Amino acid sequence: MAKEPSNSRDRILRAGENLFRKQGYSATGLKELSSVAAAPWGSIYHFFPGGKEELGVEVLDYASDLYGAAINNAFQRCASAEAAVDAIFRAEVKMLEDSDYRNGCPAAAVTVDAGSTSEPLRTACASTFARWLDCYVQGFREAGAPGAEARALASFVLSALEGAILLSRASKSPAPVREAGKYVRRVVASQAAGWPARRAARA
Amino acid sequence: MAKEPSNSRDRILRAGENLFRKQGYSATGLKELSSVAAAPWGSIYHFFPGGKEELGVEVLDYASDLYGAAINNAFQRCASAEAAVDAIFRAEVKMLEDSDYRNGCPAAAVTVDAGSTSEPLRTACASTFARWLDCYVQGFREAGAPGAEARALASFVLSALEGAILLSRASKSPAPVREAGKYVRRVVASQAAGWPARRAARA
Repeated sequence: MAKEPSNSRDRILRAGENLFRKQGYSATGLKELSSVAAAPWGSIYHFFPGGKEELGVEVLDYASDLYGAAINNAFQRCASAEAAVDAIFRAEVKMLEDSDYRNGCPAAAVTVDAGSTSEPLRTACASTFARWLDCYVQGFREAGAPGAEARALASFVLSALEGAILLSRASKSPAPVREAGKYVRRVVASQAAGWPARRAARA
Repeated sequence: MAKEPSNSRDRILRAGENLFRKQGYSATGLKELSSVAAAPWGSIYHFFPGGKEELGVEVLDYASDLYGAAINNAFQRCASAEAAVDAIFRAEVKMLEDSDYRNGCPAAAVTVDAGSTSEPLRTACASTFARWLDCYVQGFREAGAPGAEARALASFVLSALEGAILLSRASKSPAPVREAGKYVRRVVASQAAGWPARRAARA
């Protein structure tokens, strides 16, 4: 995906994002993280003086940019809202297959592990999901969706994707993300058929 | 939900299910578990000689029965497949509201924490989701759905529910589960309209 980051702080964030996706927040120790990031142990507390919780918040912020850009990109390069959503589900299938179903969603992982016990981490998860929802909302709005409908549809699409990732990881099968993607695509296409102004074809 | 179980083993399983839902698998220690279960510390290794991993597998089995029965119950008492699905999403909203958005799904929690690092736990998560899917499939079949469609629809419905629970927990808002529930109900109703034999009205 992104190039190998050259500075320690970015390497730590990237390693945290990777480890949270695979094994959750609680199981990820700072020693393992500094080793995966190839960053000196002391640099973790240098960059994140608040320790693991602060690091967790920053990792979510990093993930929110990373996947937010991927969602925007799908809407920008696809000719319709349903094609964009379809592309996002297909990319997720590829990511799961390429990682032998190990790479899930870092925001899901932190929500499940720490959303009920750490208010800063819960708030960071909420902001991350909200950011991704905003990306979908913008895509649907540009495709002509009225505001309230764009928001409700965004929430439905992200929910279906997040849940399907869980089911695919557990069963080590692409079927849940593929199946959810088909229904979601159909819902988006049927809603989009009623939108007053469809986005003009891109040059 | 269920009555307070009288024997230590059941109390341990119930406490495990509760703790996994709130804080995930990794963050749940066996000491905390024995204290919440009001079970002697030694009884955990007595009942689960394989330790935490074995206990985790048994907790998932317990949860698979518990929520499987709830899904079956919704299909049995509702007049249509879409009403059953609607009832399940509404019950989830209530469960989230009643727990201040702390109680998520134990199988989601274990998938995220341990699905990529423990094969026995991943397999147990897969079995739990498969059991719940079977309950939906049976409900849709009894409402007249053809087999393959019942299975794909079940996977879509469970994915949307699981993901919406994550988004609701993070945002401490019922909106994601409510919104996903509306779209899912609409999809189920529209599919059901094409099913050859709708289930006869119950006496």
